[in-house]
Amino acid sequence: MKIAVLPGDGIGTEIVAEAVKVLRALDLRFEMETAPVGGAAYEAQGHPLPEATLQLARQADAILFGAVGDWKYDKLERQLRPEQAILGLRKHLGLFANFRPAICYEQLTHASSLKPELVAGLDILIIRELTGDIYFGQPRGRRQAPDGHFPGAEEAFDTMRYTRPEIERIAHVAFQAARKRSRRVTSVDKANVLETFQLWKDVVTEVGKRYPDVALDHIYVDNAAMQLVKAPKKFDVVVTGNMFGDILSDEAAMLTGSIGMLPSASLNAGNQGLYEPSHGSAPDIAGQGVANPLATILSAAMMLRYSLNQPEAADRIESAVQHVLAQGLRTADIWSQGTTKVGTRQMGDAVVAAI
Amino acid sequence: MKIAVLPGDGIGTEIVAEAVKVLRALDLRFEMETAPVGGAAYEAQGHPLPEATLQLARQADAILFGAVGDWKYDKLERQLRPEQAILGLRKHLGLFANFRPAICYEQLTHASSLKPELVAGLDILIIRELTGDIYFGQPRGRRQAPDGHFPGAEEAFDTMRYTRPEIERIAHVAFQAARKRSRRVTSVDKANVLETFQLWKDVVTEVGKRYPDVALDHIYVDNAAMQLVKAPKKFDVVVTGNMFGDILSDEAAMLTGSIGMLPSASLNAGNQGLYEPSHGSAPDIAGQGVANPLATILSAAMMLRYSLNQPEAADRIESAVQHVLAQGLRTADIWSQGTTKVGTRQMGDAVVAAI
Ligand SMILES: CC(C)[C@H](C(=O)O)[C@@H](O)C(=O)O
Ligand SMILES: CC(C)[C@H](C(=O)O)[C@@H](O)C(=O)O
Repeated sequence: MKIAVLPGDGIGTEIVAEAVKVLRALDLRFEMETAPVGGAAYEAQGHPLPEATLQLARQADAILFGAVGDWKYDKLERQLRPEQAILGLRKHLGLFANFRPAICYEQLTHASSLKPELVAGLDILIIRELTGDIYFGQPRGRRQAPDGHFPGAEEAFDTMRYTRPEIERIAHVAFQAARKRSRRVTSVDKANVLETFQLWKDVVTEVGKRYPDVALDHIYVDNAAMQLVKAPKKFDVVVTGNMFGDILSDEAAMLTGSIGMLPSASLNAGNQGLYEPSHGSAPDIAGQGVANPLATILSAAMMLRYSLNQPEAADRIESAVQHVLAQGLRTADIWSQGTTKVGTRQMGDAVVAAI
Repeated sequence: MKIAVLPGDGIGTEIVAEAVKVLRALDLRFEMETAPVGGAAYEAQGHPLPEATLQLARQADAILFGAVGDWKYDKLERQLRPEQAILGLRKHLGLFANFRPAICYEQLTHASSLKPELVAGLDILIIRELTGDIYFGQPRGRRQAPDGHFPGAEEAFDTMRYTRPEIERIAHVAFQAARKRSRRVTSVDKANVLETFQLWKDVVTEVGKRYPDVALDHIYVDNAAMQLVKAPKKFDVVVTGNMFGDILSDEAAMLTGSIGMLPSASLNAGNQGLYEPSHGSAPDIAGQGVANPLATILSAAMMLRYSLNQPEAADRIESAVQHVLAQGLRTADIWSQGTTKVGTRQMGDAVVAAI
């Protein structure tokens, strides 16, 4: 088994180092190989996703990814910016199924912006389609407007698209995930305005008929953004497209108040996967040894479970994380009065010790 | 001066009736004419936006709109569904500038999902572009996928587009609005992924140079969805496109906990405007006399201020609403222990009395 380790930028290197430490502590047989990605790769090799990094990722069974991005690359042309690395990996590896849990840990309920009773025990699984939609749809670009309000004016445009099989496969992923949970799926669309999401709604409904044991409902994206704030616990498995999923999964993650705790997985049809924390590269705190490594450590657990077929090892990591939380150890982002503030490394060490 | 009154569906008729009562109580000289819209118009005349209704709206100085929509129209073809009425009015009247305030009323702070300290005094103005973007972009439709992951498969697609002048005019609206407030504008984009929003960001930045007294910052839409939950009071004027504005304005409205209080305005270049509550037609409580008419009454106040040049009359309505809140009168949606629960009509009567 081979894991490609892509730490990336900002706090990426620090948090990935802790996850690697935890993986090693498990004493399993797999190979890990590190490669640069994002801004770090651009600096070293002139491209955010160098060919060698992509090759390594292709050959690996799983990818452990840190984070990419920094303000300082904002002026680069789009194709060279760090985010292109993650978009490129998703595209080239066909990582169409993105799992983003929004879980509110019992000990961290108070960290949420929401009143505790609204988030205590929250456990939503957002399943976001990750290789289609307006993220990758062609054509796109700049031109003179061919028609519209200002014909002839400078215009930029993108194309939102979904084919039936793309919707079908992500719908199956959602229904199957729901079978392992509370058998409820909410599909988010904007069928009242968009052709793309009318097809989305139709296809999800059809696929749903093959899962008579799973309850399906549909909600418009604007209403979903509201209901997440109003009553997040009403949701269980949420399935949606790439663009809406980007927005809603971040909103849901922030509801928990502890985005530094949330892992994610992006899988392809062969269960090869990329695992990364839900948070970003946080350049403002990079290099200070204060970042929370738990989202990355929990991403490593997801990796063991989904791509490396090591569910017991995944359980061991997750129990160890529960244990350090119970011990009262907290990085700055989740610290509160009465708990013990620790740095990135101490947190990683504590998880290793608990294993 | 002529006001087109379009009550629409669900609670629309009930809440608009109260706003009309309040307008009459002001004893100003204007004509009001009512016409059917949405599902009601479809039932009566076979189309959600009949030609006569559109004509009335065109000729009026302002439109007082209730709400449209009901589950029972879900099976109709898209062009006949109630929402098409509002999309049609926006398009035909060129109502490109949508103002959606998210205000947390002092007496209603507890109604928010968020902890009181995070929302007390909240006052965000979301300015959403309303006639462009993927809402109206052509081409759109269904076809066989010309390329992509599943060439030849059934595909649905839409086009996101913005021209430079469309972005310029909404940016000017935002900067000018900010001058009447705290001189801060946040522009929301997804320039890291979308061509359309790279142009958006570029143009807003350029226009911003003409307002050196207004601070401008840029945020990605996913991050905006997070920051609204985490620290909503950091925002003041937020400007964004039609699709992102749909999602974020609803999220922001719900943060206040009292969407039944929030008005909205949609203006064209000639200050002709459509005024409607931020909430929907709520078919589940329609006809029961329990809906909150205050968002519609406050929309009437916005109408007096923006389209009818009657700022004092607008002030009178807004003060009257403050007064009834201070009296402790509450409709069911904002009721809490220790306040007096009233119905739609009683609430309208109380506002009239306060005027
Ligand atoms: C970095 C960016 C391109 C990316 C996205 O929009 O998908 C990020 O926001 C995410 O959610 O992983
Ligand atoms: C009804 C619907 C078409 C509309 C929109 O998406 O714009 C609504 O959600 C709104 O925000 O006014």
